[in-house]
Amino acid sequence: MKKLVSFIDSNFIIMKKICLLGATGSVGSSTIEVVQSYPDLFKIVAFSFYENEIKGRRLIELLKPKVVAVKSKKMAARLRLDYPAVQFTYELEGLTELVIRDEVETVVTAVMGSVGLLPTLAAIKAGKEIALANKETLVMAGDLVMEEAARNNVRVFPIDSEHSAIFQCLQGENSSDVSQLLITASGGSFRDYSRADLRDVSVSDALNHPNWSMGKKITIDSASMMNKGLEVIEAKWLFDMDYDKIKVLLHRESIVHSMVQFVDGTIKAQLGVSDMREPIQYALGFPTRMPVKKPVFFDLAMIGQLRFEEMDFERFPLLQLAFDVGRIGGTAPTVMNAANEVAVNAFIEGKLPFLDIETLVYKAVYQEKEVQKPDLTILLEVDKETREKVMSWI
Amino acid sequence: MKKLVSFIDSNFIIMKKICLLGATGSVGSSTIEVVQSYPDLFKIVAFSFYENEIKGRRLIELLKPKVVAVKSKKMAARLRLDYPAVQFTYELEGLTELVIRDEVETVVTAVMGSVGLLPTLAAIKAGKEIALANKETLVMAGDLVMEEAARNNVRVFPIDSEHSAIFQCLQGENSSDVSQLLITASGGSFRDYSRADLRDVSVSDALNHPNWSMGKKITIDSASMMNKGLEVIEAKWLFDMDYDKIKVLLHRESIVHSMVQFVDGTIKAQLGVSDMREPIQYALGFPTRMPVKKPVFFDLAMIGQLRFEEMDFERFPLLQLAFDVGRIGGTAPTVMNAANEVAVNAFIEGKLPFLDIETLVYKAVYQEKEVQKPDLTILLEVDKETREKVMSWI
Repeated sequence: MKKLVSFIDSNFIIMKKICLLGATGSVGSSTIEVVQSYPDLFKIVAFSFYENEIKGRRLIELLKPKVVAVKSKKMAARLRLDYPAVQFTYELEGLTELVIRDEVETVVTAVMGSVGLLPTLAAIKAGKEIALANKETLVMAGDLVMEEAARNNVRVFPIDSEHSAIFQCLQGENSSDVSQLLITASGGSFRDYSRADLRDVSVSDALNHPNWSMGKKITIDSASMMNKGLEVIEAKWLFDMDYDKIKVLLHRESIVHSMVQFVDGTIKAQLGVSDMREPIQYALGFPTRMPVKKPVFFDLAMIGQLRFEEMDFERFPLLQLAFDVGRIGGTAPTVMNAANEVAVNAFIEGKLPFLDIETLVYKAVYQEKEVQKPDLTILLEVDKETREKVMSWI
Repeated sequence: MKKLVSFIDSNFIIMKKICLLGATGSVGSSTIEVVQSYPDLFKIVAFSFYENEIKGRRLIELLKPKVVAVKSKKMAARLRLDYPAVQFTYELEGLTELVIRDEVETVVTAVMGSVGLLPTLAAIKAGKEIALANKETLVMAGDLVMEEAARNNVRVFPIDSEHSAIFQCLQGENSSDVSQLLITASGGSFRDYSRADLRDVSVSDALNHPNWSMGKKITIDSASMMNKGLEVIEAKWLFDMDYDKIKVLLHRESIVHSMVQFVDGTIKAQLGVSDMREPIQYALGFPTRMPVKKPVFFDLAMIGQLRFEEMDFERFPLLQLAFDVGRIGGTAPTVMNAANEVAVNAFIEGKLPFLDIETLVYKAVYQEKEVQKPDLTILLEVDKETREKVMSWI
């Protein structure tokens, strides 16, 4: 890994050249803010967007990238006419072409869902540093991805606030001294709803997260606690930690982003505001910390209290399922993740009641006979089959 | 500094040979527990005690030290008769003789009050690693002590739970990235008393600390908030931090032992039970963490909430005085510390009402014309003069 001595000795500033996958999304926007705060340190040389062409065009003009990956061949052709100096690639292959380019040093994976897997793997094989906001990559193929990262001596920096917190708490510590990762959960939009209350919730109810402003899919996943389940599996792979050593705590204030407990009983916690720029900047600037521009005001005495509660696994069965599926391993997490993506989309489109997300995900997992030690081909096949099957149920 | 590789590779166990100053006190007892938990890693080769001869004799039989420092020549003579295999030294010179002995590698300074200064300085000059529980040493002569430590390449490990927490939060970080040290205060025995309520409090009221079981002097200092003031000055020296970057927060649960905020807004906190064995073991075992034997049960969800409040400086004027005196520097902190020791003793002996501790300390500080850049001789002279003066006021 390249050491960022540059940040300390300003005579030797090395600019980090970034490829941003998912530039028009929520994490994408925060990443652009971070990059623009430190134009001498970070530059986005390539990015991707999918459907939001209006915002995509604005970003092309703003960031002046060398190459951009877009949704379709048609969209690429249209953009080429307006931006002849920029190269355009498209579809999933377009993402992969983007990340492996010579001028790219760090890939920020801020796309949503399973589409993150192949480009992340390609980037790792090409020796690019990864800043990972796409948790589905590790849920689907954590074993393969981390193995590939180790083989290529590539560091995978977490961008999720929870995993960034854990990563920060682990600095200066021996990983063998860790006794437990304590991942905090805000509880999502429905944390005070009973199971009965959940029957009639609407899409807009579910999108009303108490603490974080995020994309739709992750907000729904927060409401169903699937998001926390995905984070548990992600933590397992990022930090090479047994599921028995991962615990989730309900923490309504979302101030403690997560914690690590050590063998001597000590807990280290990372606290901060709900501002994605912080973990993004930490991942990109590591190991140097820099002020966040126009920081959100943060005063613990004004916040007054931080509360912690045990998670209720009966209230949130998808969290229990994630632990179960993680322990089973093999293709089981891939099935859970694929089923969840299809079900959440159907819920957002108004085709499914909220509680049926859980039902369909459980059904998909229990129907599947998982394959152990799957290779990438099998994982992608299982992913595709699961999607088709769950779609046929809706 | 010697690295404790020994803890990782058990084929190369190096035993750390410890001199424990203040063996019969509260921190002394916790240190002995830690040492006895890991008899292959730690050994107390020398210790001191003052008045408690019964307990001192028990410890001689238990620890079988080579040399022991005691209160007086008479006590030493008496003990020599009963323990012919042990060498005895006495009085302040006896402490200094103890710490510089060849077989001593680490000195745990767990004595109470200003008596810690000279032996700590002697130990540093002799190149011994320091584990410091005696905050008065740095309050009186932080500048001299840290300068001497730097000159002799000696590390000073904090044992106070607050400073240990800060030290732990700083691991893996650049000290230039720190924006603020956040020292937590339980509020002591009288945190919910108004100024008027304080007029008639008794010694036993003051000794009834809500969270920690400690020695008498430190418990009274907690009630008057002088203890937190001493800790602020100690933090300034240990971590080379301006007073503007040190803040105290009231935290009733004493679970967050202290925090560090960084330039990017992030806060790292260290949490744990109120068990002095934890910071002692961390200091002695650094950088390796080891299980604490028979740990106190600790479950954040059971604790439920952690509260943080601004400190009320009008309610706790000695905390304000410590900041003021720290900023003035020179002999001013020495005067404050000496006046406080005398006043607290008088309160414990029933010779002074509680609020008069504050009055006498303020009076001593305001009467003194502080000397800047004092050497050790001046510091000790000022210390002595202040004590005599304050005693004359009682």
